Amino acid sequence: MLIEDVRLFYLAMPEIQDIGDGSQDALLIRIESEGIVGWGECEASPLVSIANWICPMSHSACKSVRDAVFGQRIETPEDIVKLGHAVRSAGLDIAQTDHTWSGVEIALWDLLGKRLDEPVYRLLGFKEALPKTPYASQLFGDTPDSTLEKARQCRQQGFSAVKFGWASYGRGTVAEDNAHVEAARAGLGEEATLLIDAGTVWNEDIDAARQRLATLEAHRVLWLEEPFVGEALHAYGALAKSLHKVQLAGGEGASNFHAARNLIDHGGIGFVQIDTGRIGGIAPAKAVADYAAQRNVVYVNHTFTTHLALAASIVPYADDAQSVICEFPVEASRLALDLVEQPLSLVEGKVQLNDRPGLGVDINQATIEKYLVPVEIKVRGKTAYSTPDLA
Amino acid sequence: MLIEDVRLFYLAMPEIQDIGDGSQDALLIRIESEGIVGWGECEASPLVSIANWICPMSHSACKSVRDAVFGQRIETPEDIVKLGHAVRSAGLDIAQTDHTWSGVEIALWDLLGKRLDEPVYRLLGFKEALPKTPYASQLFGDTPDSTLEKARQCRQQGFSAVKFGWASYGRGTVAEDNAHVEAARAGLGEEATLLIDAGTVWNEDIDAARQRLATLEAHRVLWLEEPFVGEALHAYGALAKSLHKVQLAGGEGASNFHAARNLIDHGGIGFVQIDTGRIGGIAPAKAVADYAAQRNVVYVNHTFTTHLALAASIVPYADDAQSVICEFPVEASRLALDLVEQPLSLVEGKVQLNDRPGLGVDINQATIEKYLVPVEIKVRGKTAYSTPDLA
Repeated sequence: MLIEDVRLFYLAMPEIQDIGDGSQDALLIRIESEGIVGWGECEASPLVSIANWICPMSHSACKSVRDAVFGQRIETPEDIVKLGHAVRSAGLDIAQTDHTWSGVEIALWDLLGKRLDEPVYRLLGFKEALPKTPYASQLFGDTPDSTLEKARQCRQQGFSAVKFGWASYGRGTVAEDNAHVEAARAGLGEEATLLIDAGTVWNEDIDAARQRLATLEAHRVLWLEEPFVGEALHAYGALAKSLHKVQLAGGEGASNFHAARNLIDHGGIGFVQIDTGRIGGIAPAKAVADYAAQRNVVYVNHTFTTHLALAASIVPYADDAQSVICEFPVEASRLALDLVEQPLSLVEGKVQLNDRPGLGVDINQATIEKYLVPVEIKVRGKTAYSTPDLA
Repeated sequence: MLIEDVRLFYLAMPEIQDIGDGSQDALLIRIESEGIVGWGECEASPLVSIANWICPMSHSACKSVRDAVFGQRIETPEDIVKLGHAVRSAGLDIAQTDHTWSGVEIALWDLLGKRLDEPVYRLLGFKEALPKTPYASQLFGDTPDSTLEKARQCRQQGFSAVKFGWASYGRGTVAEDNAHVEAARAGLGEEATLLIDAGTVWNEDIDAARQRLATLEAHRVLWLEEPFVGEALHAYGALAKSLHKVQLAGGEGASNFHAARNLIDHGGIGFVQIDTGRIGGIAPAKAVADYAAQRNVVYVNHTFTTHLALAASIVPYADDAQSVICEFPVEASRLALDLVEQPLSLVEGKVQLNDRPGLGVDINQATIEKYLVPVEIKVRGKTAYSTPDLA
């Protein structure tokens, strides 16, 4: 299948709030070849990745993603993997490359699955896609009372695992932070799994993280996520040595296989969380899942947006019986909720990939039209990018 | 000084060649405040970083560089360091952030130095800027004979250290690669320092690198640079154990302090090479220089473009008496050569920072006009970026 008709759509809510909700906009990729359409989504700043898609060459290792993929052919899974290497090499000196390529790569898997009439997890060599236990992923409340109430609601909705993160956690006093963790556990009851996401708030300050550990241990938090920025391996490694039952989780910021591997090798993490929309798509995510399994680290998806992104993020560890938990956004924006026509179904409280060719979800064209952000980029007076037609 | 008047200029040669010459375009940053003008340069894809400068907010950790710096004030070096933390935090989920901020940060140092009437190296706490021995940095020839001739010419020009890199090295047979190394040594003579740059050609293939080591050792190569992609710490670490006198060099791709530190901690490198135009500017580069000194690793600049970039890349280790070598581009494009009015002088064959306020170089406005690439970006019909006036 020839890669020539690739369209990038920047979608956004009418108003973007200054909160940690990554579902407020989206960069959607549509690839059509031989009458078949594949869809992918980047977890990226849409405008920056659109520029990265069409930017003029700076030198031999600083080329646009478009230059590397346009006119190439894919017929097999290996072709997609090879093309990924070519894109990374051609765009080595553009930091945004992996974020941009991710959505294109995902669309290529969707396209190839539809062409071969197979779900993508089967193209990866998996016999089946196991149901995953979704954990509800959401922001802490503004007050401990609000956090407690949010935790209760999640239990009422049937979630047996809940993650709270971001918002003010780590920014106030230790006592304030601990009060939120206590409230979360109180709202969930003793049985449910509690996860805490610090959202890199302590940068590389190991002591700031250590001060919160006793409360996390006391309330049986399964993992403390992203205490530090993802590259601060020394801080992860040092904090890991201070833990008893709580484990570290991290990796969502990894924009290539090696960044995730380094956290496993040197960061002492127990859970590696991969966003297929950032790491360069499904193939590098699968490589991380394989490596994690060798090292007894549990692979988990990172997803905060649509069910297209969710499907793409579950596929790389679809048959992993050791990793039964999966991030499931419960506070997604209207845009994210309405983009996909067949959201992943919850069967007896578990998330199941749709057993259809490709990624198994269809895109609602009316949602694209409704939230489309028109963009035009001109270089030397010539249009380098202009929001394309829908079909 | 209030940061409000920030202008980004995309400059490019009329024709960009598909070779490893990073001087063919430039993203120049001009900041004016209180009648003083500071200049900086990003080592980045210009169009991608322009989009990153003005991109609409996606969420609280996905904001443009402009949003984070506009309306802020700097009066002291610490203000620039703090602003860097704020920019990285606001742009955490945009991979391009550090590449874009680098040029802005460099321009802020230039501006502050001019305001305080001090060279930037003094703002960093250094008493003096030591002369550095420049090594000529250039591509291998097309044939071993051509490599030999290039090496001879460098010696005739007075260089006592020469680096060959990229082009076909690592892509042909071991014998072909070795022939180029032998030719380089033959052309340089026995006395000169020879450096080899593999330009990440082996990705993470440790054996491919090992096959070339005997010849590198035999011809007394000081360092083998970037055998692998910068994040492949395990490959660097494994190769380092196979070396005798040759040392590994790497780090040019580091887009933050931690990435460079990780190569020092886990990659077994003997030389850490930092591009201030990528790592987030002068402050994080200085932090790497300080850390390298603690770990007995030699800090070296990475520069392949203008003397503005060269000055900014020497400043972070200006007083480092242990690190006397400096990358000095000898094949820069006309654009790069003509952009700066006071190139760094060679005094008795050594590079010396200009002892003037700021970074000590002036920008030739006619060069900007000559190579300017007009760009316009519209979002929702409104102009988000349009190439600004020169003054």
